[in-house]
Amino acid sequence: MQILVPGTVVMVDARVNLYKGVNQLKINEVSKIENLSEVDLSNFQRVSPLPLEDMKKKLDAYLNSFSDKDVETITRAVISHFYDKYITYPAAVKIHHEFGSGILHHSLAMADLADDVAKRYPQVDRDLLVAGALMHDIGKTIEYENPLMPAQTVEGKLCGHIAIMYAEFKKIVDELNIKSEVPVLLEHMILAHHGKLEWGSPVLPATREAWLLAQIDLIDSHMMVLDKALAPIKEGEFTPRLWVMDDVSFYKPKKR
Amino acid sequence: MQILVPGTVVMVDARVNLYKGVNQLKINEVSKIENLSEVDLSNFQRVSPLPLEDMKKKLDAYLNSFSDKDVETITRAVISHFYDKYITYPAAVKIHHEFGSGILHHSLAMADLADDVAKRYPQVDRDLLVAGALMHDIGKTIEYENPLMPAQTVEGKLCGHIAIMYAEFKKIVDELNIKSEVPVLLEHMILAHHGKLEWGSPVLPATREAWLLAQIDLIDSHMMVLDKALAPIKEGEFTPRLWVMDDVSFYKPKKR
Amino acid sequence: MQILVPGTVVMVDARVNLYKGVNQLKINEVSKIENLSEVDLSNFQRVSPLPLEDMKKKLDAYLNSFSDKDVETITRAVISHFYDKYITYPAAVKIHHEFGSGILHHSLAMADLADDVAKRYPQVDRDLLVAGALMHDIGKTIEYENPLMPAQTVEGKLCGHIAIMYAEFKKIVDELNIKSEVPVLLEHMILAHHGKLEWGSPVLPATREAWLLAQIDLIDSHMMVLDKALAPIKEGEFTPRLWVMDDVSFYKPKKR
Amino acid sequence: MQILVPGTVVMVDARVNLYKGVNQLKINEVSKIENLSEVDLSNFQRVSPLPLEDMKKKLDAYLNSFSDKDVETITRAVISHFYDKYITYPAAVKIHHEFGSGILHHSLAMADLADDVAKRYPQVDRDLLVAGALMHDIGKTIEYENPLMPAQTVEGKLCGHIAIMYAEFKKIVDELNIKSEVPVLLEHMILAHHGKLEWGSPVLPATREAWLLAQIDLIDSHMMVLDKALAPIKEGEFTPRLWVMDDVSFYKPKKR
Amino acid sequence: MQILVPGTVVMVDARVNLYKGVNQLKINEVSKIENLSEVDLSNFQRVSPLPLEDMKKKLDAYLNSFSDKDVETITRAVISHFYDKYITYPAAVKIHHEFGSGILHHSLAMADLADDVAKRYPQVDRDLLVAGALMHDIGKTIEYENPLMPAQTVEGKLCGHIAIMYAEFKKIVDELNIKSEVPVLLEHMILAHHGKLEWGSPVLPATREAWLLAQIDLIDSHMMVLDKALAPIKEGEFTPRLWVMDDVSFYKPKKR
Amino acid sequence: MQILVPGTVVMVDARVNLYKGVNQLKINEVSKIENLSEVDLSNFQRVSPLPLEDMKKKLDAYLNSFSDKDVETITRAVISHFYDKYITYPAAVKIHHEFGSGILHHSLAMADLADDVAKRYPQVDRDLLVAGALMHDIGKTIEYENPLMPAQTVEGKLCGHIAIMYAEFKKIVDELNIKSEVPVLLEHMILAHHGKLEWGSPVLPATREAWLLAQIDLIDSHMMVLDKALAPIKEGEFTPRLWVMDDVSFYKPKKR
Repeated sequence: MQILVPGTVVMVDARVNLYKGVNQLKINEVSKIENLSEVDLSNFQRVSPLPLEDMKKKLDAYLNSFSDKDVETITRAVISHFYDKYITYPAAVKIHHEFGSGILHHSLAMADLADDVAKRYPQVDRDLLVAGALMHDIGKTIEYENPLMPAQTVEGKLCGHIAIMYAEFKKIVDELNIKSEVPVLLEHMILAHHGKLEWGSPVLPATREAWLLAQIDLIDSHMMVLDKALAPIKEGEFTPRLWVMDDVSFYKPKKR
Repeated sequence: MQILVPGTVVMVDARVNLYKGVNQLKINEVSKIENLSEVDLSNFQRVSPLPLEDMKKKLDAYLNSFSDKDVETITRAVISHFYDKYITYPAAVKIHHEFGSGILHHSLAMADLADDVAKRYPQVDRDLLVAGALMHDIGKTIEYENPLMPAQTVEGKLCGHIAIMYAEFKKIVDELNIKSEVPVLLEHMILAHHGKLEWGSPVLPATREAWLLAQIDLIDSHMMVLDKALAPIKEGEFTPRLWVMDDVSFYKPKKR
Repeated sequence: MQILVPGTVVMVDARVNLYKGVNQLKINEVSKIENLSEVDLSNFQRVSPLPLEDMKKKLDAYLNSFSDKDVETITRAVISHFYDKYITYPAAVKIHHEFGSGILHHSLAMADLADDVAKRYPQVDRDLLVAGALMHDIGKTIEYENPLMPAQTVEGKLCGHIAIMYAEFKKIVDELNIKSEVPVLLEHMILAHHGKLEWGSPVLPATREAWLLAQIDLIDSHMMVLDKALAPIKEGEFTPRLWVMDDVSFYKPKKR
Repeated sequence: MQILVPGTVVMVDARVNLYKGVNQLKINEVSKIENLSEVDLSNFQRVSPLPLEDMKKKLDAYLNSFSDKDVETITRAVISHFYDKYITYPAAVKIHHEFGSGILHHSLAMADLADDVAKRYPQVDRDLLVAGALMHDIGKTIEYENPLMPAQTVEGKLCGHIAIMYAEFKKIVDELNIKSEVPVLLEHMILAHHGKLEWGSPVLPATREAWLLAQIDLIDSHMMVLDKALAPIKEGEFTPRLWVMDDVSFYKPKKR
Repeated sequence: MQILVPGTVVMVDARVNLYKGVNQLKINEVSKIENLSEVDLSNFQRVSPLPLEDMKKKLDAYLNSFSDKDVETITRAVISHFYDKYITYPAAVKIHHEFGSGILHHSLAMADLADDVAKRYPQVDRDLLVAGALMHDIGKTIEYENPLMPAQTVEGKLCGHIAIMYAEFKKIVDELNIKSEVPVLLEHMILAHHGKLEWGSPVLPATREAWLLAQIDLIDSHMMVLDKALAPIKEGEFTPRLWVMDDVSFYKPKKR
Repeated sequence: MQILVPGTVVMVDARVNLYKGVNQLKINEVSKIENLSEVDLSNFQRVSPLPLEDMKKKLDAYLNSFSDKDVETITRAVISHFYDKYITYPAAVKIHHEFGSGILHHSLAMADLADDVAKRYPQVDRDLLVAGALMHDIGKTIEYENPLMPAQTVEGKLCGHIAIMYAEFKKIVDELNIKSEVPVLLEHMILAHHGKLEWGSPVLPATREAWLLAQIDLIDSHMMVLDKALAPIKEGEFTPRLWVMDDVSFYKPKKR
């Protein structure tokens, strides 16, 4: 049937009949689920180990935590604009957080680190850094077409999630009529968050918060890469060379 | 007076009096010209050696030359949106085309090369390439604040003209409701036109036309760099090392 | 038989006999064709899509087009010295223009671009640039042993076509007793035409024409690379990563 | 006098006499202070903004916080071996933490971040990471000769603080007769903490904790670099290019 | 049996019986040889083509050749400390000198070159250079576990033979109570002998002798690489690309 | 007078007169010395510390030492072709061997090292390596115009001494009608002797002898660079950073 294409979720209306002593599945109807938020995706793909409801509460807590009103207004507007996809999409095709709700999982982990760092260094603008952590990867909701079979769209490949996100962000924020520097500071953080031109950021971090966001992104994504690489390795042995970790074989120490 | 700040053009209402046999300038009023398109900028800055009227006619000819309707619709919409600045702004703070109407001068020269190349290689999408040539640097009208004293704005420094242009372009084009791939193909050309990640493009050229646009940009800008570098050099001698030309000293051959 | 080695063309004198109702080929003699210009190579290898006669006429037209007598004298002398191989050899073992008469095809395409660019920039020495385009790859006639099975000779591998060409060029030109700078300017163009030291040029381009020649070479060779890479790809899809194009997957837009 | 050489602290026994109505300083004796821990160095150099006593207490708290006995034994042994210098030396000749007690200040800030990160990622070996933070720069006590005039010794220049520290560490730890992998894991962290071969680490990080230590070192040292670079800059303006931050000019946002 | 593990040498006490006209091996006992110096390793692995006794004599000659007493004292102490392994271990797991007594073979060949160079350049400190040649790779005796199955230990992988050697060297030398600069000069040579930070030296050569040692190491190891790569190649042909020789295919000239 | 231009040697016919008790120089005639080999250049420039006659004898000895007749024939032909300049020219404008007879001095020192290395490694083709050492820099006689004021000619700058030498070498050797591979092997050595494409060799070393020649060139030129850099430095101190030695400050050890 035409609707049985990879990456779709279908509802099957069927009945099990006993026919000559053998169970038989009789399909009445197969219908495509158009809106993926209606189904529990964890039945169809690997999902974040954290319960979605817990993550949604944590996100709310962060949204309520801002003291800078412009930061709050913008972050609420942007996240609500992408909300359904933001809470369900994976953060990557492969490499790290390549599971359902991966963007949300990764964004919250980065917000946690952002909060920690801001407590240690009062000179950091905490609200900017946390907002950057929450929003930096939202572009991936546009870059990928289908959360069940994450693959870059043509637009995603030709323009990249950094530029796509920046343009979407700007469109939403321009309508909010914010007077302060907050929009341009957040736009800079989004554009610079890969940390290096060779990694696809069109500008290098040029504010304290943009520089920290790139570092925090590195830490959280690499922790996930190491989790995955070390899982199948025995204690006292090395992983294969990890391309994403400077081509180094990582060691799994013996339990003590 | 407060209005006499660098980068402004002022109208001076004054009278020359003869006082004890000496000419004396008596100023009645100094008023700031708010709209720079009302004045002939060539009185205040170095401008393109090509007459502005000729360039405007050539631009019109190119706008009339498209056979692809989507390309035409988009290019007209984008250029008219930025028109006043597009025809007066310099293309750079320094390095190349750093004179009044530099963007227009540089864009038309690139359109000429684009047209030539497309004639030689019929497999090239001529309309896309010419449109890319005309629009690729429009972001500089936003990146710079004042055409008389070109300096990057804070937004220009933090986001760069490539991303700024891309977002503006997308906003304008999204409203045109184009169905074809033309918008994303042009967006890719704008994003990729620096040709290398290290030079600030967030994606590498991945279409024939995007790759050619980057090459054509290189040729026209470097011709201008060489004009400037070779002008003060005697025949049979070398320029100083030119940073922008791989740090090479260029030779000025003897006239034959 | 000893003469049936790969890369040779042989003349077979044979007769078809009917023997017991079956056609039978009776070979009388097999003789090696020593001079490949006696045969129509298009029977044995992929050749340029352009008819050889047309290309030869176009070459003549370019040779007649020079106003600089030194450029003309040198170009005629060099091309006539290599003529037979120049009009039949492929331009590469693989990658681009890897077909019969590939050097001629590629050289003329570059001369066309050179002519175009020189018309747009009167400060360019058109004759030098066109002559450079015609002669820059002649060294490949020495670098490769056999046009039917192009493979680098030991000398080609150990010395490279750039140095080989330069030495041959210098030998021919030294005997012409030219007084002007033209010989050294053309020698520089040949040596610098790869554009980068990492790509095997022993010097970087240091004249306007040498720099342009390297750019034009890049454009024509990359157009050919893209033709080949995009040919088997469906519209709306991407090529595999192209090593020669910065390892990028190129997109083939949908027909509009 | 011979003892009045730069970088020494001297005790001056003098008396102020009134001589013909003018105060006169009569010096009886000048003696060199051999042991710098006897004097309050903050009288002679810029010191950490944090009170030394507070830092010492915090250090004690960290030493008491280890649950891994091998980590604790080693860290106590190593720090007590270098104690006097560890609590007074600067962390660098220039660039960052170039003030009295800079090593201690920087090590504790890194231990704080290490603690934070380990709380967020339970898969991190917290004790190893904190111990690495406390000890990674102890080699600088040997690399520099004089805390008042920090300059690398000949040994410091020829061998570098990473190798020097590693050898000292190994000597101390070898005598502790530890059976577990802890010594080699800490040695690896010390050797790899610069994070890149080009930055003088002889091995790349190959354990989760070694990788994190290098990231945390980057964050704390760069926060200090930015503090210093941004201090003299007006809001809304950019620093000069910062060599240590990828040659980027950093922006100081306007207060909101 | 448990003792029959790869990399061990065992003594087999067996008898050949004739049983029903067929030879039969009857094993009485298999016992592991604990001390590998008791057996002739050339029975079990590829060994240096030079007789071990000759190499030992040559080593003695070099040890007797020093006129600088500090150099002699240190070199004798260090070599005797590692003697058994020094004369039997391979110099590498693969790439070069990967055979029994490879460290000794390679060290003596380098000492020969060192001696030659010092004769040509009297400004070279010959004793330092020869001592560096003899000792630079001793760390490999610790980096590898088993000379019959050379594989890096966990410590070897995590710390590298350069740092390991440096620490061992320092420990031995510190006890000799040498007053001159010789220890630090030799330590620098050991640390810098890879010649580049990217190749794992934590410091770059900063003395004449350290720079020469790195060059001499390059020459001897690359001669061995070429011997191995060219051996199976016919005259007049090329090797495959050699990763260790800048990825170049080397030519084997025809015999003349 | 017109002939008193920098870089010329003039013969002055003058007389010292006593005039009013003061010595006065009366010049009768100033005539330019056209052939610099007529004069003792050591009166006018810094020359090699080795007596020219000794170097000439050593050169003769090397020319007589070849057992390979083709190598001998070629080397004699090439050196005699350039003889006058070969024995008087400096090897560089600056950096190393920048004194009279510098090419000869440097070539002989390299031949010495070549001879040493070939004795240690019998697999080396000694005659090729020594011949390469003697001839590799002969191109500098053409690259520089005037040995007293060494400066690159326009041809030297545009083509480089490697390509120039190769072409000259080929022209001379082609007339010798050598049948063996020796010419192409020597041509490869000349082209590859800089050892890296980034250093201006159009091909990388691909024979054992070409690779060794590049190493030997590095050693002899760097010994000279260090001599010059260390000369003004006190024992126990460091040179400034040496650009040519990877930007490292070199240490001058204390005399022992």
